[in-house]
Amino acid sequence: MQETVLPGHGSGGKLMNQLIRDVIKETLDSGGLQLDDSAILPVEGEQIVFTTDSYTITPIFFPGGNIGDLAINGTVNDLAVMGAIPRYLSCGLILEEGLPLDDLKRVLQSMRAAADRAGVKIVTGDTKVVEKGKGDKMFINTSGIGVLTQPLQRRDIQTGDKIIVNGTLGDHGIAVMAERNGLSFTEGLATDCAPLNLLIQPLIKAFPGKIRFIRDATRGGAASVLNEIVDGRRFSVRLIEEDIPVKDEVLGVCEILGIEPMYAANEGKIVIVVDPSVAADMVARMKELPFGQDAAVIGEVTGEFEGVVFMQTPVGGRRMLPLLTEDQLPRIC
Amino acid sequence: MQETVLPGHGSGGKLMNQLIRDVIKETLDSGGLQLDDSAILPVEGEQIVFTTDSYTITPIFFPGGNIGDLAINGTVNDLAVMGAIPRYLSCGLILEEGLPLDDLKRVLQSMRAAADRAGVKIVTGDTKVVEKGKGDKMFINTSGIGVLTQPLQRRDIQTGDKIIVNGTLGDHGIAVMAERNGLSFTEGLATDCAPLNLLIQPLIKAFPGKIRFIRDATRGGAASVLNEIVDGRRFSVRLIEEDIPVKDEVLGVCEILGIEPMYAANEGKIVIVVDPSVAADMVARMKELPFGQDAAVIGEVTGEFEGVVFMQTPVGGRRMLPLLTEDQLPRIC
Repeated sequence: MQETVLPGHGSGGKLMNQLIRDVIKETLDSGGLQLDDSAILPVEGEQIVFTTDSYTITPIFFPGGNIGDLAINGTVNDLAVMGAIPRYLSCGLILEEGLPLDDLKRVLQSMRAAADRAGVKIVTGDTKVVEKGKGDKMFINTSGIGVLTQPLQRRDIQTGDKIIVNGTLGDHGIAVMAERNGLSFTEGLATDCAPLNLLIQPLIKAFPGKIRFIRDATRGGAASVLNEIVDGRRFSVRLIEEDIPVKDEVLGVCEILGIEPMYAANEGKIVIVVDPSVAADMVARMKELPFGQDAAVIGEVTGEFEGVVFMQTPVGGRRMLPLLTEDQLPRIC
Repeated sequence: MQETVLPGHGSGGKLMNQLIRDVIKETLDSGGLQLDDSAILPVEGEQIVFTTDSYTITPIFFPGGNIGDLAINGTVNDLAVMGAIPRYLSCGLILEEGLPLDDLKRVLQSMRAAADRAGVKIVTGDTKVVEKGKGDKMFINTSGIGVLTQPLQRRDIQTGDKIIVNGTLGDHGIAVMAERNGLSFTEGLATDCAPLNLLIQPLIKAFPGKIRFIRDATRGGAASVLNEIVDGRRFSVRLIEEDIPVKDEVLGVCEILGIEPMYAANEGKIVIVVDPSVAADMVARMKELPFGQDAAVIGEVTGEFEGVVFMQTPVGGRRMLPLLTEDQLPRIC
């Protein structure tokens, strides 16, 4: 019989200890996990960055990844875009009774591999079990601590700054939507889930003081990040449609499902706002770094309007990209 | 019509921004919440303590408290028992579609009040929404960061040490079980949920080097903590039954439900293992401090056996208190 998560696995008794020792620690730990309720950690530096994210994506397995590597990379990226070096992660599991233990192990293995790749340690954790029908297979919270190297602030953005992305937009959201809609046979669709600290820290070092702001374009996509950038400011963002990298396969599914790729979620893409004097050099450098091969300048900060994001089309038209009331893609992360 | 959580509240668009700004920030923030995805924080000291807990308690409102103050105090206590001063908390919400916004507000108000009382700041957060039937009203993850003042280590425990608790055992678990079983009319039943840093830090200062180990007796109760203490060691713990403080109301419900109070969850109780030379003084000091009024020495570490916890009864008998395979009290925190 297939082993599954049982109510007793969350009870504080022997069964829970077994699950934690034989499955979770065994699978997840690459040397940093402290089995006390808390972890004691050294910190170098005077300022830390602290972040939290709960992952409720459905399905938990999707083309190119699963909820586990998503939970690691998502939180690593939240730290990295602040200008921090990610150091420590926590792992809070909410497991639904009946979840196959093999699925749990696969997810934990992905978490461990993703943490190793990103250079972070999972140091503390917690496991809860809910009855069937009171959860959805598994939810994961990862909170993270990083050491600040270079504060990046939205208020430093100014007119003339260039907008760069590190690659094709919408891959994650469209891969998950394709899976949900039975379109996953489409070749070339996969999440872009990646640890962007491996890209961001070298850029911060190579272009000191030239990066104004970085944000990961997750829920709500690049358009939502850009709206955050112009919100309440006396400038706007102009995007050049033909410069925006989007995979043909993603565009195809977007057309079938009626989704605009600028609003589709990414898990390995950042929007960088940069001093225009270094924009071309930065794109060239990004192409040599991990997860930057398809980097491109996609637009700029302009004084033409205030507080809006718009797309310049090849035929000279303009299309607004407002913040949507709600996203088309629920539970995408 | 009653306002409830909608799917769009978790989507990354305007609706989510409204929920975060008008409900979550408005209710939760007492000045420390950073609305970026992450918080930048100063740290004093070279070692931090990091912990995480997800709260899935049902029902979310119970006698004397709710999931909100539980989520704050539980994580504050996890830091405090390590010998740390709790500083910063995160708040990760997983909301089920249909949750009344008034319930959400009540919970967030409790979180804020509990954080203020404990002297910690909620600095960062995340909100996800799941469809009806894929969650259970709300789950909360709080992760926490504290600054280490005095490391306390299980390995420092030795034969002869005294076991102290700060008050009556089983209050939280029995209050919640009574509520679930329609016994909540019973007078005097209420969670003991409390911020124990207000008790622990003064004790650490008053008795430097004399406290071996502290642990909060949550899921699995005091018996599970004591089993953790003797696990793999060459000593045992002898408890004196008549010295263990338990409220009459709690004993009454325990008899009806067939629960042993030593295994019932607490949310404001700690087990302290202490140098025997200061045990009486420490109990006297605890009675003057917050949450220590009913403190008592309940037993000691003894070389009579190895790796077990047992209860000495008034008539001279002995009863083993093993680690249970699973707890009788699912989703108690």
